[in-house]
Amino acid sequence: MSERVVVVGADAAGMAAASQARRLKGPGELEIVAFERGHFTSYSACGIPYWVGGDVAGPDALIARTAAEHRARDIDLRMRNEVVEIDVAGQRVRSRDLESGNESWTGYDKLVLATGATPIRPDLPGIDADGVHGVQTLDDGQALIDTLESNPGRRAVVVGAGYIGVEMAEALINRGFQVTMINRGAEPMSTLDPDMGVLIRKAMQGMGIQIVGNAELTAVRTDERGRVTAVATTDAEYPADVVVLGIGVRPATDLARAAGLPLGASGGLLTDLAMRVRGHENIWAGGDCVEVLDLVSGTERHIPLGTHANKHGQIIGSGVGGDYATFPGVVGTAVSKVCDLEVARTGLRERDARAVGLQFVTVTIESTSRSGYFPGTTPMTVKMLAERRTGRLLGVQIVGREGAGKRIDIAAVALTARLTVDQIVALDLGYAPPFSPVWDPVQVAARKAVTAVRRDATGG
Amino acid sequence: MSERVVVVGADAAGMAAASQARRLKGPGELEIVAFERGHFTSYSACGIPYWVGGDVAGPDALIARTAAEHRARDIDLRMRNEVVEIDVAGQRVRSRDLESGNESWTGYDKLVLATGATPIRPDLPGIDADGVHGVQTLDDGQALIDTLESNPGRRAVVVGAGYIGVEMAEALINRGFQVTMINRGAEPMSTLDPDMGVLIRKAMQGMGIQIVGNAELTAVRTDERGRVTAVATTDAEYPADVVVLGIGVRPATDLARAAGLPLGASGGLLTDLAMRVRGHENIWAGGDCVEVLDLVSGTERHIPLGTHANKHGQIIGSGVGGDYATFPGVVGTAVSKVCDLEVARTGLRERDARAVGLQFVTVTIESTSRSGYFPGTTPMTVKMLAERRTGRLLGVQIVGREGAGKRIDIAAVALTARLTVDQIVALDLGYAPPFSPVWDPVQVAARKAVTAVRRDATGG
Repeated sequence: MSERVVVVGADAAGMAAASQARRLKGPGELEIVAFERGHFTSYSACGIPYWVGGDVAGPDALIARTAAEHRARDIDLRMRNEVVEIDVAGQRVRSRDLESGNESWTGYDKLVLATGATPIRPDLPGIDADGVHGVQTLDDGQALIDTLESNPGRRAVVVGAGYIGVEMAEALINRGFQVTMINRGAEPMSTLDPDMGVLIRKAMQGMGIQIVGNAELTAVRTDERGRVTAVATTDAEYPADVVVLGIGVRPATDLARAAGLPLGASGGLLTDLAMRVRGHENIWAGGDCVEVLDLVSGTERHIPLGTHANKHGQIIGSGVGGDYATFPGVVGTAVSKVCDLEVARTGLRERDARAVGLQFVTVTIESTSRSGYFPGTTPMTVKMLAERRTGRLLGVQIVGREGAGKRIDIAAVALTARLTVDQIVALDLGYAPPFSPVWDPVQVAARKAVTAVRRDATGG
Repeated sequence: MSERVVVVGADAAGMAAASQARRLKGPGELEIVAFERGHFTSYSACGIPYWVGGDVAGPDALIARTAAEHRARDIDLRMRNEVVEIDVAGQRVRSRDLESGNESWTGYDKLVLATGATPIRPDLPGIDADGVHGVQTLDDGQALIDTLESNPGRRAVVVGAGYIGVEMAEALINRGFQVTMINRGAEPMSTLDPDMGVLIRKAMQGMGIQIVGNAELTAVRTDERGRVTAVATTDAEYPADVVVLGIGVRPATDLARAAGLPLGASGGLLTDLAMRVRGHENIWAGGDCVEVLDLVSGTERHIPLGTHANKHGQIIGSGVGGDYATFPGVVGTAVSKVCDLEVARTGLRERDARAVGLQFVTVTIESTSRSGYFPGTTPMTVKMLAERRTGRLLGVQIVGREGAGKRIDIAAVALTARLTVDQIVALDLGYAPPFSPVWDPVQVAARKAVTAVRRDATGG
């Protein structure tokens, strides 16, 4: 009477699901077969920029659990095996052994899709040249490091100014490269409003990173051996010995699409609260291949992030194992380190709020990480959006130094609980001179937002 | 038609109230008279240990706003003037000029009591000896520093192991004293459960601080000139050239008591949500002289803390100025630095929960401040209490190093919003390798608490 679950993709979501299911059901009750086309399992993709930058010894340190460890827990893990077709009606998947090329069908009672995301590679001349790298997988990271260590010239171009682009630009500067970052927008980190992004740009420029804004990649130039020599944009060309693509990722859902599974506007799989693919009681999906519900805007979004993938896996594993858990959604929290800055955001940017019909006031304040008189205190900028009339918190963006980043969690919990800015002013947050001014910077922003909401309401 | 408000006490609560009232009403509408018996206004008492320890240049750096600055805003601030009687029926206060000894009556339309707290000085032989110091006011801090700089011997005894005692022990070690800490309880920092307090004791012992637990002060020994030579406890005597009392404080409400105003079990003034003294529409009170509503236990407690005092002042000033604001209560958040540890707590300890009839499960976990592979990651211990059956969060205690302390804010907001541990597991908190493991330590504790609540419910 044993059931079989097939897991497609053996990174965070897939293997967290497998592990949780195994915790709930032993091998006599549940057979677990997992397919992974790459060389690695359960790794921290978020750690790749730090590996490249030399802060972390990779790739082993980035692997949370090895294939052998998974197998020791009675998970039939098939590495370098790519699932190439899902037969939903027949409840089976077709896989290809990437070493031998052999293909075979494997039947399932339950299916878990954790196929992750694929870096966006615009279809441009030269984009597949030697020396052009994505940084999505450990395999990608290794390939990039191999290139860097092969002593190419010292000129690096990073295309894209999101988290990965910014982190990679810093990693490459740390390795002694001259770095140019090509950014489609005016300011880096479009997950922030531009008036906060400008703070990031200035910090990066202060580190010697050249930033080209409002520029679109049009081609990669190569030499006669097919190696990259420059990147071309709408305006100019930039010499390059190595190119890192950090343009973003899209859900890796070609398989799911071919199988007729429901996809959202971003191409991510659509699931219910228990992370089951909509309309399919025995198929779950999680991690970077799904869309998640944004609790603030009420819309579905694609937010590839390891922390969500791990939660999804946990919930999927509970469901597969016959237990019960749900994923309520996200508020859009993200934090990162850029040069000496800590950068964090949660909730909606101005454009997000407008896009869903929310009207709002915004305030921006300057405060400090510790009491003003305490040694080591550093400046912190907090931007806050609050809904008109109701004063409900809609979003927070923070740029500062030590102690700035994780302050975003105050706002993340407040968004989840749908607190108003008045309620945030009243919060009983940790205060002592080495940790915070007597009003936490988030509350300084909330106080100003309270005034702004009132002024707006009274037309004053 | 001008009204007069009299403010008694010109520290955080009193002067925040005066400033906010002045913002709302100009001097033509509202006369503000503030009495202060000390030499300083609006200062950070929390900064005194850092001043004593040499981290902060005091006392000027600790003063947020000077008497002159307040006067420039049309506040009639009378320094070194002590209010010695409140005539509630006559709506007037009697004050004494501490320089001249002259007394006079001042009438009021509105009264703000911000008399603060008084260090507890047990009535023991020798307690008033030279070299025995409290550290409640800047005047106290200056007196202690004068003693330390007068080159007494190098043996210091700190009586009490709460925040102030622990911070003072560290400050004195940093000044090169041999430090003995006399603690009534078994472990320092009784604001934590003893199983967490032990971590503090070990860190302090590691710094060379001698800790005497389960010891009650019985006397202070003096020489023929009346200078301290030792402290005696129930068990033993400890030689001392300087003694710091950090036994705690009690609300400074002798005046209020004599005037017949309502006091709670701790001796703190009882107020309504608008911080008006109960039963008195034209008397407000805030800061260290009042009791506050603990939102988790539903009881009133005395929690002297600058962050509450500032909020109270803000709310009182709004009320006095004819605007509207309320103080909903606290959840009991506190954070401090002890040696190289960051220590934080919010909500209820085990004994607090039991005292109000709450039944609960507790879990304690070990996690890390950053991704396990990230440089600079440090261990962190999180203890969590959740209510039986409902799983509602009741309290969190954290001991760790960098990045541990302010994580308590996650729990502080969750307590305010009455989240369950299941809801905490699902929170969208900031994640990136330099800031957190993929599951934040608070969520690691919440996951274990979810399991404990379920196990308890099923008797498993």
